[in-house]
Amino acid sequence: MDDNKRKVLEEEVRAQADRSIETLYSYLRLKTVSAQNLAIPETVNFVSELLNSLGAEVKVLDDLGGNPIIYGFLPAGEKGNASKTLLFYDHYDVQPPDPLDEWNSDPFEPYLKDGILYARGTADNKGTLMQRLAAIKALENTSGLPCNIKFLIEGEEEVGSPSIAAYLEKYADLFKADACIWEFGNKDAAERVSLFAGIKGSAYYEFSTKSAIIDIHSSLAAVIDNPAWRLVQALASMKNQNNDITVEGFFDEIEEPDEALIKTVRAVPFNDEALKKSFGLTRPFITEARGEVPQDALMLQPTLTICGMVSGYIGEGAKTVLPKEAKVKIDCRMVPGQTGEHLLACFKRHLARHGFSDVKVEMIESQRAFRSDINDPFLKLVKKTAEEAYQSEAVLYPNSAGTGPMYVFDKYLHLPIVSTGVGWAESKAHAPNESIRMKDYVDGSLHMAYLLTEFAAQ
Amino acid sequence: MDDNKRKVLEEEVRAQADRSIETLYSYLRLKTVSAQNLAIPETVNFVSELLNSLGAEVKVLDDLGGNPIIYGFLPAGEKGNASKTLLFYDHYDVQPPDPLDEWNSDPFEPYLKDGILYARGTADNKGTLMQRLAAIKALENTSGLPCNIKFLIEGEEEVGSPSIAAYLEKYADLFKADACIWEFGNKDAAERVSLFAGIKGSAYYEFSTKSAIIDIHSSLAAVIDNPAWRLVQALASMKNQNNDITVEGFFDEIEEPDEALIKTVRAVPFNDEALKKSFGLTRPFITEARGEVPQDALMLQPTLTICGMVSGYIGEGAKTVLPKEAKVKIDCRMVPGQTGEHLLACFKRHLARHGFSDVKVEMIESQRAFRSDINDPFLKLVKKTAEEAYQSEAVLYPNSAGTGPMYVFDKYLHLPIVSTGVGWAESKAHAPNESIRMKDYVDGSLHMAYLLTEFAAQ
Repeated sequence: MDDNKRKVLEEEVRAQADRSIETLYSYLRLKTVSAQNLAIPETVNFVSELLNSLGAEVKVLDDLGGNPIIYGFLPAGEKGNASKTLLFYDHYDVQPPDPLDEWNSDPFEPYLKDGILYARGTADNKGTLMQRLAAIKALENTSGLPCNIKFLIEGEEEVGSPSIAAYLEKYADLFKADACIWEFGNKDAAERVSLFAGIKGSAYYEFSTKSAIIDIHSSLAAVIDNPAWRLVQALASMKNQNNDITVEGFFDEIEEPDEALIKTVRAVPFNDEALKKSFGLTRPFITEARGEVPQDALMLQPTLTICGMVSGYIGEGAKTVLPKEAKVKIDCRMVPGQTGEHLLACFKRHLARHGFSDVKVEMIESQRAFRSDINDPFLKLVKKTAEEAYQSEAVLYPNSAGTGPMYVFDKYLHLPIVSTGVGWAESKAHAPNESIRMKDYVDGSLHMAYLLTEFAAQ
Repeated sequence: MDDNKRKVLEEEVRAQADRSIETLYSYLRLKTVSAQNLAIPETVNFVSELLNSLGAEVKVLDDLGGNPIIYGFLPAGEKGNASKTLLFYDHYDVQPPDPLDEWNSDPFEPYLKDGILYARGTADNKGTLMQRLAAIKALENTSGLPCNIKFLIEGEEEVGSPSIAAYLEKYADLFKADACIWEFGNKDAAERVSLFAGIKGSAYYEFSTKSAIIDIHSSLAAVIDNPAWRLVQALASMKNQNNDITVEGFFDEIEEPDEALIKTVRAVPFNDEALKKSFGLTRPFITEARGEVPQDALMLQPTLTICGMVSGYIGEGAKTVLPKEAKVKIDCRMVPGQTGEHLLACFKRHLARHGFSDVKVEMIESQRAFRSDINDPFLKLVKKTAEEAYQSEAVLYPNSAGTGPMYVFDKYLHLPIVSTGVGWAESKAHAPNESIRMKDYVDGSLHMAYLLTEFAAQ
């Protein structure tokens, strides 16, 4: 792309990005909370119309159950490369806005202040989709689309994408592409653009034990076994005070990282001070106590996390009760190779071996990890074009510490995936006062325009 | 007492007990929930009037704060023994009725069916007080009161009797007596009358640890320490899988039981099948696994019980959150010699020694244990008269596994104490559908009449 063409494109992207804000506002006003099954048909119509207005062929896929998946296709322009196809993965659903009283403005009424736009879904991921569409519009208005573009926009990402695998399997030909741009990303506290070439998997379990049909007067704890103590002992047998996971077989399936991967992982920044400040952390990082590299832990090692725990009386003051049952919710962030089913089998065997056959474990959901080949040229291209568009350093993470359905995209479509998006360090996705910065919105749009252009030429 | 006098008394007690039911209904309709500070003044008036109507001298003590304590005094009749005084300890407050939807009738509208009277407070302890007053009325109507009678009726028993020690200390002379009849008791599943010559103490603690100011996305659990895991590990260090309490110093203060006490303890029945059935227990008794005598555990050994535990997400389904804090509520049932303050110091030292200085512990309340001298003739007298009145076996427990403010009664009044009351095996004190059987109500009233008569002659 010569400097002149680049300048024309940049101006048009900025204009289109500005123009798209009003449409973004309308999109954000739709309360598409998938966990509560809200506003799904309206949002599907809204997004289909957005794609239609760009001239896309649109299919609303709903024959396999779940919230509809929107397919969109835009062919390369006359001067474009019709042999290359880029797939965008986005989702039209958002997280619930709770706790409502911690929002400074209505979560479903966009509020712009000092260049920051607040609303549920701004960062995750309605803003990111709109940013992409603005880039495409700008390309259409200038030199035409440089390659084919496909969209897969689902409506269950915030509830673990339970239906997507079935659709990808059935419609693998429809969604076929050469590379995929994923739905999330952000600038970090040091204004570096964070890009992710993979994700961790996640498997979610509920452990429970029940000893009686009703809560019992605690005086009888002298003779009656306490399910809360049982669960505490069972949990303590699974992870020790040094944070070593002690479940036999837990690490068995892990694909050993090679030297190149370890090097790339350790090269990404770890924003320890930003994390400490952002969450008001009172304890040292686990990795500090263990003498480990935090980047290794975030990208190459699985976790075993208590997400929630409940038993007996949890109100104010004293109630002398012996609980009838105890429950704990456990999340495992998995690395490539691991499966939720194997971990479930490990837990069951561990509980039986350690005398906790009364503790039941059930898998609620699971998604496998995925990591693109770090030598794939697409990864380098995403990074290079990001640095050009944002005019700041970009960091390519071999994988994010978070989760998404990348594994099934690779399974059925076999393609490199990089995730990027409109977020910033304080975007608070999933939390109150979610926001994006309008400057990032425009720069990210430019990134997509540059990427599409160079991807077509690659 | 000759047979004729005994017969006259029995008939009059039965008549007075029947006649008192209507007044009991009015008493039960008062919603005297001390935890919610409900209906306190009305109930104090109601109870004062009850005592007045028997001719008692009544004082409402409220100069030291808390809900008023009602003092009542009835002198021995002309033919009675004015050198002996029996003190009745009762309370006019009741437990909250929650959970309301588990009641089969209105908890504050007495409902009689098949000889069983349902309402909050029937067993604990409004029914028991009325039963005692009916006995006194019958004695007044026949041969006159055989001894002096005093009452201490408090209104904070269900919230741990926080004010009673101060009143007992200040008014020790006023409440001076030779023996005390306590507020609770029941017939067991085998229709034996259970009498209690002591109670365990209870100390209630909250342990908590906090690592962050907000809940965090669980992907960061790879590096950020989890307060729920911290608390699990801290708890597991305090009690092992075999239910051994491993807190150093926990058993230090315990008064060693002598041979006679151990023998008495082991002689009381342990209704294992009734307990299993009543609570639907799915696990063996702790004592079974430990090869211990359940009676020892219930009466001679302290407990360390998780009453409640909470951290993070406790709703349905999955939320992948790293909790900001974790809390647990712990109840220790103590035996004579132990103090809540010593245990608090043990917990603090234990946590510090085991690397859990981030876990805070706070004592919410504590009451010491008390056990009457098991050789005191008063104990034998209560048992003997119970067997005569109920025409069934009575069992004297050296102490109950439950708790009450007996320790401070002994501290300031120095007297033997036995607890007896109107309950049966299915009374469900503190639970929905609390009830008493009318036959027990009348038999227990007769027990009090016999006891007062023989106590005066002892």
